[in-house]
Amino acid sequence: MTGTVYALGVGPGDPELITLKALRLLRAAALVVWPAPETGESLTRAIVAPHLEPGREEMAVRIPVTAARFPAEVYDRAADRIAARAGAGGDVAVLCEGDPFLYGSFMYLFARLAGRVRVEVVPGVSSVTACAARAGAPLAARNDVLSVIPAGLDEDDLMRRIAAADAVAIVKLGRHAAKVRRALDALGLTAHARYIEHGTMANERISPFAEADTARAPYFSTVLAHRRGAAWR
Amino acid sequence: MTGTVYALGVGPGDPELITLKALRLLRAAALVVWPAPETGESLTRAIVAPHLEPGREEMAVRIPVTAARFPAEVYDRAADRIAARAGAGGDVAVLCEGDPFLYGSFMYLFARLAGRVRVEVVPGVSSVTACAARAGAPLAARNDVLSVIPAGLDEDDLMRRIAAADAVAIVKLGRHAAKVRRALDALGLTAHARYIEHGTMANERISPFAEADTARAPYFSTVLAHRRGAAWR
Repeated sequence: MTGTVYALGVGPGDPELITLKALRLLRAAALVVWPAPETGESLTRAIVAPHLEPGREEMAVRIPVTAARFPAEVYDRAADRIAARAGAGGDVAVLCEGDPFLYGSFMYLFARLAGRVRVEVVPGVSSVTACAARAGAPLAARNDVLSVIPAGLDEDDLMRRIAAADAVAIVKLGRHAAKVRRALDALGLTAHARYIEHGTMANERISPFAEADTARAPYFSTVLAHRRGAAWR
Repeated sequence: MTGTVYALGVGPGDPELITLKALRLLRAAALVVWPAPETGESLTRAIVAPHLEPGREEMAVRIPVTAARFPAEVYDRAADRIAARAGAGGDVAVLCEGDPFLYGSFMYLFARLAGRVRVEVVPGVSSVTACAARAGAPLAARNDVLSVIPAGLDEDDLMRRIAAADAVAIVKLGRHAAKVRRALDALGLTAHARYIEHGTMANERISPFAEADTARAPYFSTVLAHRRGAAWR
């Protein structure tokens, strides 16, 4: 009997936004794995901390964020340990902030584990819908096209992608916030755009994007805009 | 003391994919409201049925799906009853399949309730990420643009929107499935496209889109495709 690797979407930040399924599998796992920066705390682990029993076997996958190249060997090594644990009969829970398949680092483990061990992905509440809920800003209705756009695209590409959508969630703002502001200004979309930082977390901040300080936007911040402005009302 | 209206995302179908927060608010509500077709069962209510205690006050919002025009008066009447219940001091839980702000009919109630009563939206797992999880198909990584595209767009628009994205989730397939197939064929994206019908529900079906019978696709079916094919592996 070999174990299963469960990729658990733990939601956008509020520990209560985990699903019953993820919680059940988290509590039953022999090994709990979570991503973390090279040194310091893991935000993902913090989300499930209220649900984790003490004494549980845990493993951090520490990713050097400033690395010049993709840290393939970190994922290789982690995948080997996860596959070995599952091979020895234990279920492994790999924690993923938001949803595992939406810009999550689990993808790189998935690429290394699929076909070697049984992998099941448990979807989670993504920060995109969570930010919309917190801002009171509906995302998309009827035949609207909603595009989720990473802020790291270059400015022309960013404008082209925004223009091709009806509604946009521009994610991972960080140091790209001023560029995003210019793009939305140029497209006439700033007036009703909403800015959400650390959505659903204790340090959440929400404001009109026009009033946000783009110089200090953290990585986990999002802008929501809709071609119809606030006309869904 | 007036009550609060909670819009609860109950997830894509599997009753275990509800969040702890939605479950807590559902169980504490004085009135539980759910959308339903003009006659017959409510899929949304079926999702929470395992969690609902008997004897709870409930109200269906029955939407005539074949109506020639937008059923504004149905939403007006429902909003009045919900506002009255909250005004009398009871919390109201309005159930929403998937996430309330992603193509959900709650938007029309929200437009009528915001400003009259306190409304809090609780995000849920959307069918988009749930379908990706079930199909074992990562949605988006790094700087990928993910577009959620309703299949009802006309064929040229559909092709234009798909071409402007890196990854697409084409939702609400139903009678538009053959058109979607033609669009993906023309763009060379069919080979790795995945078809998911009733994702996470008891009657779930998953296959390569190339093998799906487009003549019988239900409304709740989705196609996932990525410009890189299966190259995330």
